[in-house]
Amino acid sequence: MKLARVGEFGLIDRIQRLIVDESPDVVLGIGDDAAVLHPQKDRLILFTIDALVEGIHFNLRYSPFESLGWKALAINISDIVAMGGIPRHGVVSLALPASWKVEDVESLYRGLRRCSEAYDCVLVGGDTTRSLDRCCISVSVIGEVEEGNVKSRKGAQEGELLCVTGELGGARVGWEVLESDTDRGPFLKAVNRFLEPKVKLREVQELIAELNVTSMIDISDGLASEVGHICRQSGLGCILWEEKVPVAEETVIWADRRGESISRYIFTSGEEYELLFTVKKNDYERWKATQPIQKDLNFTIVGEMVKRDKGIHVKRGGEIVPLSSFGWDHFHQ
Amino acid sequence: MKLARVGEFGLIDRIQRLIVDESPDVVLGIGDDAAVLHPQKDRLILFTIDALVEGIHFNLRYSPFESLGWKALAINISDIVAMGGIPRHGVVSLALPASWKVEDVESLYRGLRRCSEAYDCVLVGGDTTRSLDRCCISVSVIGEVEEGNVKSRKGAQEGELLCVTGELGGARVGWEVLESDTDRGPFLKAVNRFLEPKVKLREVQELIAELNVTSMIDISDGLASEVGHICRQSGLGCILWEEKVPVAEETVIWADRRGESISRYIFTSGEEYELLFTVKKNDYERWKATQPIQKDLNFTIVGEMVKRDKGIHVKRGGEIVPLSSFGWDHFHQ
Repeated sequence: MKLARVGEFGLIDRIQRLIVDESPDVVLGIGDDAAVLHPQKDRLILFTIDALVEGIHFNLRYSPFESLGWKALAINISDIVAMGGIPRHGVVSLALPASWKVEDVESLYRGLRRCSEAYDCVLVGGDTTRSLDRCCISVSVIGEVEEGNVKSRKGAQEGELLCVTGELGGARVGWEVLESDTDRGPFLKAVNRFLEPKVKLREVQELIAELNVTSMIDISDGLASEVGHICRQSGLGCILWEEKVPVAEETVIWADRRGESISRYIFTSGEEYELLFTVKKNDYERWKATQPIQKDLNFTIVGEMVKRDKGIHVKRGGEIVPLSSFGWDHFHQ
Repeated sequence: MKLARVGEFGLIDRIQRLIVDESPDVVLGIGDDAAVLHPQKDRLILFTIDALVEGIHFNLRYSPFESLGWKALAINISDIVAMGGIPRHGVVSLALPASWKVEDVESLYRGLRRCSEAYDCVLVGGDTTRSLDRCCISVSVIGEVEEGNVKSRKGAQEGELLCVTGELGGARVGWEVLESDTDRGPFLKAVNRFLEPKVKLREVQELIAELNVTSMIDISDGLASEVGHICRQSGLGCILWEEKVPVAEETVIWADRRGESISRYIFTSGEEYELLFTVKKNDYERWKATQPIQKDLNFTIVGEMVKRDKGIHVKRGGEIVPLSSFGWDHFHQ
């Protein structure tokens, strides 16, 4: 059924049935001018917004509506997690062409709900409106963080280690596989990473409970770009050890098939939603000594922070070359 | 200069210079993964999101960029005010075609800043991305409210008075004047109301401090639609006294010139951002007796809440006619 037939209020009624906004800290959820929430005692509030725009971030030719819903919320939860926080509540603003079917919007909301349940981030409101021809999904999330636990981009210091969770490159591979209509079979992990990125909420909470993380950022625009943010905001330079950066097997196979360098995927693959962070060497060594040998650490040391005037460089084989910033930039391309 | 030339990070740098995000309760403002904020003690959090979509809510043929910025924030502040709250912080998500000029984005941010300063709602972050061809501006605002002061849509009771602030009809007149390229001279108030709606933050705070308001909603979709929300959520019906609804002179002149009924403007003019609310008769009488005779009350009684099974009716002259819901519906038209 087309949206034009069911109307805005009919749609809102259907959406409300799909969303569970009950939670002890929700005084008033969906259906009023604004949601009313109990703040957590002795916590700071984290507040972020991020959008998915049709034709830029997704293509309806291959992006399932449900995955869109998941991703629109997940990318915001990732921002909260990258600050050292826990997501609490989200609101959704949907601009939809009247040609969409009600079932499509319901699928999108099923994805939102699935993500909301996976990370315990309650959807408490939103706004649905028409758009002329393309869809835009904006989500805003608030979270909480203990005062001493805020992980900003500017806490890194000279001599600290630069670390990354997981493996990089997959999101870009997934996007290229989908864009080129290639058989997904051999690249399913990469495709899923692009369509429904997972957020390392529990992993990061464990990490910062055990290890003194001094700065953190999520990889949404690509490693090159995020390293630049940490360096600029912390007033430092950096040496990245390219060979140390973990890359998924699918990325190696795909880069080889395309005749592309793996570096390109390592440095420019955005929408990875892995975490890039810094720790003091001593803290890392002390902590490492307490870990069982067989334990998977879930992160890798990929570089070292240096003085600002040394700039940002990549160590590749025996060579050290300047990292020209080839991060994803939304207005260039 | 086109956005494509300055790039996303160049644009963000320019925007940061336009925005003042310093405030005692802002721990970390623009420029990290999420803003970090101190909550207000003993207050509940209000949380809302609302978008302006090109071609639906605005037309760049006549909407100045600065006004767009003002309005995108104001409509969210209005939602906070309609809950009985005070706005605190906002985040902005902009999806922009690469053909926009940097100066246009700066104008838009000047409007955001002006609105932010007018209502003391600090902009603490956001997200800027490309769009293929049209602009979408989503803003999310958090506010605060004392636990006993939450004004939802569902607190009205049978026999209570229905009241409205200000005068209705102007926003639709403003939109029609602009759409039809009519000389704005005689309709400046209406045009300004459409382009840069004012939010009655101080007036509402005064009102709820003096008078026991039992339910409240802002008029964003039109009086007919908002009355319906209060009735449905409070489980009531209503009689609207049409002749009592205050209408601006410009609306009367415009309706007359177009050969349209004034009712149409009264009931369907959305984006007014006046407040519709209910009070007990006794409370109103008691309060009225304490007011100086010459004092302008800033609101008008326009109806009475009745039992649900009596439905929603309009009293027009001696007649009582059912209000067919002719509120603005974003997917019909």
